[in-house]
Amino acid sequence: MIVVLRPDITKRAETAVLKEIRKLGYKPHVMRGVERTVVGAIGDERTHHTLEALASWPQVEQVMPVQKKYKLVSREAHKGNSVARIKGLSVGGRKFHVMAGPCSVESERQLMTSALAVKKAGATVLRGGAFKPRTSPYEFQGLGEKGLKLLAKASRETGLPVITELLSQDHAEMVAEYADILQIGTRNAQNFQLLIAAAKTGKPVLLKRGLAMKIEEWLLAGEYVLANDNPNLLFCERGIRTFETYTRNTLDLSAVPIIKQESHCPIVIDPSQGCGRADLVTAMCKGAVAMGADALLVEVHPDPSKAWSDGAQQLSLEGFGKLMKEIIPFLAAAGREPAWA
Amino acid sequence: MIVVLRPDITKRAETAVLKEIRKLGYKPHVMRGVERTVVGAIGDERTHHTLEALASWPQVEQVMPVQKKYKLVSREAHKGNSVARIKGLSVGGRKFHVMAGPCSVESERQLMTSALAVKKAGATVLRGGAFKPRTSPYEFQGLGEKGLKLLAKASRETGLPVITELLSQDHAEMVAEYADILQIGTRNAQNFQLLIAAAKTGKPVLLKRGLAMKIEEWLLAGEYVLANDNPNLLFCERGIRTFETYTRNTLDLSAVPIIKQESHCPIVIDPSQGCGRADLVTAMCKGAVAMGADALLVEVHPDPSKAWSDGAQQLSLEGFGKLMKEIIPFLAAAGREPAWA
Amino acid sequence: MIVVLRPDITKRAETAVLKEIRKLGYKPHVMRGVERTVVGAIGDERTHHTLEALASWPQVEQVMPVQKKYKLVSREAHKGNSVARIKGLSVGGRKFHVMAGPCSVESERQLMTSALAVKKAGATVLRGGAFKPRTSPYEFQGLGEKGLKLLAKASRETGLPVITELLSQDHAEMVAEYADILQIGTRNAQNFQLLIAAAKTGKPVLLKRGLAMKIEEWLLAGEYVLANDNPNLLFCERGIRTFETYTRNTLDLSAVPIIKQESHCPIVIDPSQGCGRADLVTAMCKGAVAMGADALLVEVHPDPSKAWSDGAQQLSLEGFGKLMKEIIPFLAAAGREPAWA
Amino acid sequence: MIVVLRPDITKRAETAVLKEIRKLGYKPHVMRGVERTVVGAIGDERTHHTLEALASWPQVEQVMPVQKKYKLVSREAHKGNSVARIKGLSVGGRKFHVMAGPCSVESERQLMTSALAVKKAGATVLRGGAFKPRTSPYEFQGLGEKGLKLLAKASRETGLPVITELLSQDHAEMVAEYADILQIGTRNAQNFQLLIAAAKTGKPVLLKRGLAMKIEEWLLAGEYVLANDNPNLLFCERGIRTFETYTRNTLDLSAVPIIKQESHCPIVIDPSQGCGRADLVTAMCKGAVAMGADALLVEVHPDPSKAWSDGAQQLSLEGFGKLMKEIIPFLAAAGREPAWA
Repeated sequence: MIVVLRPDITKRAETAVLKEIRKLGYKPHVMRGVERTVVGAIGDERTHHTLEALASWPQVEQVMPVQKKYKLVSREAHKGNSVARIKGLSVGGRKFHVMAGPCSVESERQLMTSALAVKKAGATVLRGGAFKPRTSPYEFQGLGEKGLKLLAKASRETGLPVITELLSQDHAEMVAEYADILQIGTRNAQNFQLLIAAAKTGKPVLLKRGLAMKIEEWLLAGEYVLANDNPNLLFCERGIRTFETYTRNTLDLSAVPIIKQESHCPIVIDPSQGCGRADLVTAMCKGAVAMGADALLVEVHPDPSKAWSDGAQQLSLEGFGKLMKEIIPFLAAAGREPAWA
Repeated sequence: MIVVLRPDITKRAETAVLKEIRKLGYKPHVMRGVERTVVGAIGDERTHHTLEALASWPQVEQVMPVQKKYKLVSREAHKGNSVARIKGLSVGGRKFHVMAGPCSVESERQLMTSALAVKKAGATVLRGGAFKPRTSPYEFQGLGEKGLKLLAKASRETGLPVITELLSQDHAEMVAEYADILQIGTRNAQNFQLLIAAAKTGKPVLLKRGLAMKIEEWLLAGEYVLANDNPNLLFCERGIRTFETYTRNTLDLSAVPIIKQESHCPIVIDPSQGCGRADLVTAMCKGAVAMGADALLVEVHPDPSKAWSDGAQQLSLEGFGKLMKEIIPFLAAAGREPAWA
Repeated sequence: MIVVLRPDITKRAETAVLKEIRKLGYKPHVMRGVERTVVGAIGDERTHHTLEALASWPQVEQVMPVQKKYKLVSREAHKGNSVARIKGLSVGGRKFHVMAGPCSVESERQLMTSALAVKKAGATVLRGGAFKPRTSPYEFQGLGEKGLKLLAKASRETGLPVITELLSQDHAEMVAEYADILQIGTRNAQNFQLLIAAAKTGKPVLLKRGLAMKIEEWLLAGEYVLANDNPNLLFCERGIRTFETYTRNTLDLSAVPIIKQESHCPIVIDPSQGCGRADLVTAMCKGAVAMGADALLVEVHPDPSKAWSDGAQQLSLEGFGKLMKEIIPFLAAAGREPAWA
Repeated sequence: MIVVLRPDITKRAETAVLKEIRKLGYKPHVMRGVERTVVGAIGDERTHHTLEALASWPQVEQVMPVQKKYKLVSREAHKGNSVARIKGLSVGGRKFHVMAGPCSVESERQLMTSALAVKKAGATVLRGGAFKPRTSPYEFQGLGEKGLKLLAKASRETGLPVITELLSQDHAEMVAEYADILQIGTRNAQNFQLLIAAAKTGKPVLLKRGLAMKIEEWLLAGEYVLANDNPNLLFCERGIRTFETYTRNTLDLSAVPIIKQESHCPIVIDPSQGCGRADLVTAMCKGAVAMGADALLVEVHPDPSKAWSDGAQQLSLEGFGKLMKEIIPFLAAAGREPAWA
């Protein structure tokens, strides 16, 4: 920690700071500058009591942390890329994966049509929401366990593993029984109890970035998964909230190289939530592939205009087939192989 | 709903839109403008299937909702101000309340010292966190049930009702046993399962605004509480996330007149989280009082620099006493009475 | 400056950093921590060559400035409150001022009606736009010099000094001839050439905060005025851009205590631009007064629905009269006197 | 325009709105819905007086524009892609261009070294700042006309056309004399006087997106250029301001497909400003290419750590050479040809 003292403070006020730093288990190191005196507090910022509260002292101008707070998810902890194992699949290696399917599971027919079509087009994981977090209590909340059973059935018939959102700690075991990857949604990205419950099922966890989550906070949320003994963590960028209203969210593709730099975990891009408009999805996917993402998570619906949720952002089956063909040359340019080839 | 069609589309493409609107239960109403044709879709947007998915059709430029989605929390539903009943207290009426206490419950001594001091200064509700949502898994997570017991004890000894955060659905009954108001924190503001669990305890619910939550989404999250048969809802503004880094968050005081305009529920301001700096708290409180807030939620600690969480934003006992005196003339100007006088 | 080195770098890489720091005129000071080595670079960060470019070196993790970059506008430079002199008036002292008038000058009649009414209600400065920065080239761009002449006439007839926006360096002298305060608008807050031109006229300058301007950047923009030998600077908060869409901007009232803490210059609040809705203006004004603002800048129009610009946010003459009465008790509570009493 | 009336208003209040709509030159069209009455106002929103001021009427809930406000820059105005002509070059066609060079022109040697190296690596336009907009008045402000002369010299010696920033209307002619493209920087993106002055020189204008500029506002700023008879406009995305602090700005790559959809003008990506970190530049460039950008604008310096401005984000000459090779396969995948091959 670096503690910057205000100018013109008394010797006594300075001594009090140094004493406090020592009491909190750090070794103070004073540097007298031209306009400010700065104290370096030597010690492990993660295990010692925090010094940030010193900012409330009148003689202290600011307190700046030096260390990164995340440990297990960091690139320093693990130099290579870690690979999430999903049934027989490996996400994070040379093979590039596409997870696709409808926003919500609506009926057996809608789901099976989607599952067969996305498989045919190359998807290697089937997505579908059974529990839906909806802004309004009057919107469709998902089919619940019935939806999970349909997903399991579609999985058996197509051979595709299934990813679905976990909304409630109480459902962790139930969802883990039917699904192969547990998705933590953007609204729950800092619902730490849910993260812990998901981690403890032992199933791979895909952690979406919160709407207003800084990269550091996202990495720390991921740390909750690894710290609960679950090594199969995937980060998923799905758009952050900004002032722009043309798109529903602003897809922050810089998250791809940043996660690759800071962490060893795979990074997945969700362009459907990311822009909220089907007409931008294909371009976003090309960008994600080029920048080094490990997988895509794409919403696809047999008839988007009739979707029970988020119709505006879902691709048609035909549109998805086109997308899958169009990203092939970018995969080659990025030195990746399509998992479906 | 208003559906704006793209220019230069075929008659057939237009007819398809009209047909779809009818199929979804609305009555279409065509208006031909100079550059665009616009279709009004007449029907209740809350009960009918949504039309927003039409935006995925190539002939549709945009779809704009006309109705507000919230119902029970709205001013239209209840013309007067509703008052939340907290033990013997009423929040939302003429009397102005201050809820105060430490960020985290750390020990019996720390809590009792705080409780007695805030009571003496005028606070009418005691706050204190027993379960703490922490960005990092390596930070202090709260004393848990032991903290709740200390709060209950402090409540018995001072007579102050207690507000504390509910973090997990599984703890709803336990927390409701000890606390008089359940607080839903900013990170869980759209954790709808938690909102429902809190509502069902029957205890008053204080709903903090999410870090990136639009007013409309906040009102809809509150709708989850009222729709689950709990009329005692308080909204609490605690700062939104913006680009500014001088303060931890940007306290959006315009939320006070907006909530008063759109809703009948009380509005509480949390300046401690709102700016994250103790030196700005008093000014923020004066503003909140002047603008018509019903209560304040203030963090106070016997020794902020030693606090186990968020020390930089907690007032000292002395600072809190001063604040309580300084807001009196503003309460008078606002036509409110201090609940403690 | 604090330079944080990456872990596991070679001795040689470290030495290169120290050498570079010396070469740039600073004295390096090494602190070896548990996980990181940190180098304090002693020297005046404002006059020496910046060290921030070191962040591009592979062995450097981050570079953190310690000093504040602003000097003349800072509270350290001038302990008391500075007062801007506007003709006979002093803004920044015990007397509280309200500047009011139409968004745009539209006609002699519209302006004179407004000027007489706002004067009668208590305003001490007349506002009105002659040059209007408009998002679209097809919107009304202001009456230009004709508008300035009308403002000067209204000033003569009412005795009110005039504030108006300066849009172009080329107009600085012309605008200064007619106006008593030059307003720099939000879109030009970092148009440094314009700031310098305004400063050089010698007239008081009111500097609005840019839509996405951090407090530090705003203070530094103000520094351009003082550094060009113009001591009469007023800061004006007028809302920042956030994700919220209920209001046009988010009025950041925390700017009041922050500017008071960091600077000696007066702070003015513009609630009209700040929220973009006339129905919120009065509440915002009360908050601004309570928090310690020195003046308000309010848009008033004889018939807002017919305004040529920004009608939705302008108060009617009657509404303005009501506002002026309603803020009186808050001024008293804040220890201020209305300049008009 | 769509005017939504409040529920429960009198017939008389409704009639007043209809009368006003007619008076402002529109034809009102009433639709009675289940909960709201909505009035469509038929007429050209760009040429008629705006109706938005009606939002200040008590009986009006909201006013929603239907038409897009931009005309000349829109895809509707020009179905094909327009191509900016820069000396012999065409930007916006099949050939992909890279504009590169130092952030600031510092000396003849620094500039010539850069110019020769970027040309060798494939750049087809030389960038370099002679007038620098600096947040602080104490930072290096550029070499001014001397810098322009050095750019012209480098242009003569390498044959590369030159792009440089125009900061002041007063310099428009001077800068146009030396430069081949005038750059309007992010802080001046809504400095309409500067835009007009730049347009009138007849030189191609590259318009950077403002830090907090919505896509619609950016297109409208571009409209100022085309409306002043200059058809050679290039849009340049360079990062928007968000809450994230890991990067200096958030590069919004979705701007590429959006500009392509809404406008016929070329779109350029500036990854250097966009993320503010040299280590992310290459990944951002790959994404931009894959998504369909027409050109890149990249900062390159012979020794970034000694740069007089923005050293942290400038690539070394070697790094730039590597970048130019690495994007080749992505250009091929995107169906583009490198202009330098």
